[in-house]
Amino acid sequence: MADLDLMRELAIDGDTKILLLVLDGIGGLPQTPEGATELEVAHTPNLDGLAIRSICGLGTAVAPGVTPGSGPGHLALFGYDPLVYEIGRGVLEALGIGFDLQPNDVAARGNFCTLDENGIITDRRAGRIPTEVGARLCEKLRQIDLPGVDEIFVEPVKEYRFVLVLRGEGLHDGLTETDPQQTGLPPLPVEALRPEAEPTAELLNRWLAEARELLADEHPANGCNLRGIAKDPGLPTLPDVYKLRCGAIATYPMYRGVAKLAGMDVLPTGETIEAEVETLKQYWDDYDYFFFHVKKTDSRGEDGDFDAKVAVIEHFDQVLPEILALEPDVVLVTGDHSTPAVWKAHSWHELPVLLWAKYIRPDGVQQFGERPCMAGGLGHIHNSDLMALAMANAGRLAKFGA
Amino acid sequence: MADLDLMRELAIDGDTKILLLVLDGIGGLPQTPEGATELEVAHTPNLDGLAIRSICGLGTAVAPGVTPGSGPGHLALFGYDPLVYEIGRGVLEALGIGFDLQPNDVAARGNFCTLDENGIITDRRAGRIPTEVGARLCEKLRQIDLPGVDEIFVEPVKEYRFVLVLRGEGLHDGLTETDPQQTGLPPLPVEALRPEAEPTAELLNRWLAEARELLADEHPANGCNLRGIAKDPGLPTLPDVYKLRCGAIATYPMYRGVAKLAGMDVLPTGETIEAEVETLKQYWDDYDYFFFHVKKTDSRGEDGDFDAKVAVIEHFDQVLPEILALEPDVVLVTGDHSTPAVWKAHSWHELPVLLWAKYIRPDGVQQFGERPCMAGGLGHIHNSDLMALAMANAGRLAKFGA
Repeated sequence: MADLDLMRELAIDGDTKILLLVLDGIGGLPQTPEGATELEVAHTPNLDGLAIRSICGLGTAVAPGVTPGSGPGHLALFGYDPLVYEIGRGVLEALGIGFDLQPNDVAARGNFCTLDENGIITDRRAGRIPTEVGARLCEKLRQIDLPGVDEIFVEPVKEYRFVLVLRGEGLHDGLTETDPQQTGLPPLPVEALRPEAEPTAELLNRWLAEARELLADEHPANGCNLRGIAKDPGLPTLPDVYKLRCGAIATYPMYRGVAKLAGMDVLPTGETIEAEVETLKQYWDDYDYFFFHVKKTDSRGEDGDFDAKVAVIEHFDQVLPEILALEPDVVLVTGDHSTPAVWKAHSWHELPVLLWAKYIRPDGVQQFGERPCMAGGLGHIHNSDLMALAMANAGRLAKFGA
Repeated sequence: MADLDLMRELAIDGDTKILLLVLDGIGGLPQTPEGATELEVAHTPNLDGLAIRSICGLGTAVAPGVTPGSGPGHLALFGYDPLVYEIGRGVLEALGIGFDLQPNDVAARGNFCTLDENGIITDRRAGRIPTEVGARLCEKLRQIDLPGVDEIFVEPVKEYRFVLVLRGEGLHDGLTETDPQQTGLPPLPVEALRPEAEPTAELLNRWLAEARELLADEHPANGCNLRGIAKDPGLPTLPDVYKLRCGAIATYPMYRGVAKLAGMDVLPTGETIEAEVETLKQYWDDYDYFFFHVKKTDSRGEDGDFDAKVAVIEHFDQVLPEILALEPDVVLVTGDHSTPAVWKAHSWHELPVLLWAKYIRPDGVQQFGERPCMAGGLGHIHNSDLMALAMANAGRLAKFGA
């Protein structure tokens, strides 16, 4: 798997361009054992034409059998081993709502819950209160002040979920969660896993105590838990490791946020694939590496709508010639994880991967699909290795050893 | 390769059932370069029918080129990397004779040997004395008593081999072997590799001294060596790591013993495959995971009897529908290692692997055989990854990261 120190040592400048096209949740499953997957069913003359001139394979984002969340799934594509470089849930939740997280912020995912008269959790999700109610409760919690903390943000997410961010000097992560993960127990105190995090633990426990007072008369959301309390992990950045100027084009906050953590410039764009293509064209001369994200393949997979996922793939296929007309030197097409419509959720299944560049060995794969990719020349690959392959094919990696 | 901490973190409860069908030594070789392997020659309509609806591949138990013993071969299938989790030879030898090893016992494999008048080893196997002679000598050695050791077991295995087990408080492993691995040298003393094992080393050296006195008048077995002195490795158990209630069905003590080390309940069964199937039916509702072991594929391979191994495979194929009628959610069919009849021993060749579940991508493999599996969708896989894939397909692994 990708060794970032090695990459940093070997990376050289160049004037070539790498384009990573991510169809979120692209991996699928057939609806019957004899059937074909979403990608195989889709009429994709442009992807298939590219596949014929490419080397293909099947990718794993984390490990065999492990279903990746969006964070780990993208980290792998950006060249990080997701088991080594983890992004806390609080940070991902903040990125997901487009919160402008600063390097020293401590972020937590908050869940409103229901407590009985003895402070025991009876419902970890407070009956899934409506989003509007969650927003009103967040408003209420904003009156809490903490000594030495410059700013406290309490931002609603959806239903019972919110984000808590503390901003100030000297805040640390390395803290336990308060959610006991089952009903019948009280919320746990935040505990420091290392000595320097003690003061932050105290601040969060104080915040929680005040929050419980403020929520005491609410029903059913009369309590809350904090999970995944974390800071920006301070990843080695792509510009630093690979000497690449990186631009990210994505319509959803989560993906823009992960790209930002990896050191990419997040480019302003619109809501549609066409708008994203326009952005790509507009900034084409300014960057060496582009991350181009298509969200709706995943959304339609999560909906369980096989045909709608097929339609998103076909839509993307139609704009592909316009993208390729920009003449990138290296093109990667894959996903961050599978979202088979029949499974209606992220899954552990391998991703179809396509790598096109001038100096690859075409492998006889005639169609971009999961089963054709099984016979592809890349074989079974860890997604975090794709970055090095892209760099090599872009002529941007020096020889190792003499 | 499987990361047990990650598995422990991700494993969730469920009501699905995983069935691991192990055909011991299933992997084979053709008798001529143009020929087919035992599995390919066998008429197996049921395995082939299952393969068509499954995803197949080739598995490695330890590492490329490494021939696995039965212990490591099974550990890999149970999700342990055999290079990380080792079971000492003494423990395996004790398990192999069905000895009821306790967690604090120290077990060693004993070899009778021949010494000259100067105490130099002239035959490391004492002329392969008959098993009855070995048993008589073990009887003789049972009179040795050691201070502070509650019980000492000396159990014959076969010919010149026996098992020595010390039972009592405060015994440690981390001890060197006495066998110098060549003739012309005297047996070595047992030495402690860590300070806390010093007293156990002293006890074993005292036992060896007394054993030599008792054997002095015997011929040719007038000495003995101790190898692989070890305790139960205290593996993380399957119930603990994967939240699975696990039942093991095997006719031979070795496999029951390894299953027990992995935390499985060893179910009483008979001597035939039919008896094992009856046991599987009887306990079907009581467990989430079954390890079902077929021994005779390996035995006939070791005999070098190609046709007899084919017949065992065909026999298993006939009972397969009865097994599948139980409606497991995930089925794995493979072996712990290869035992090609033409090689007459365990070998390093990859194992054919078949994974059936509702949400897999069938791969076009039409027959369960080594060569068809080369084109299978699982590719070349490490056997210790199969457990994670089985868990994922059983819907028993949570998503990694958000």
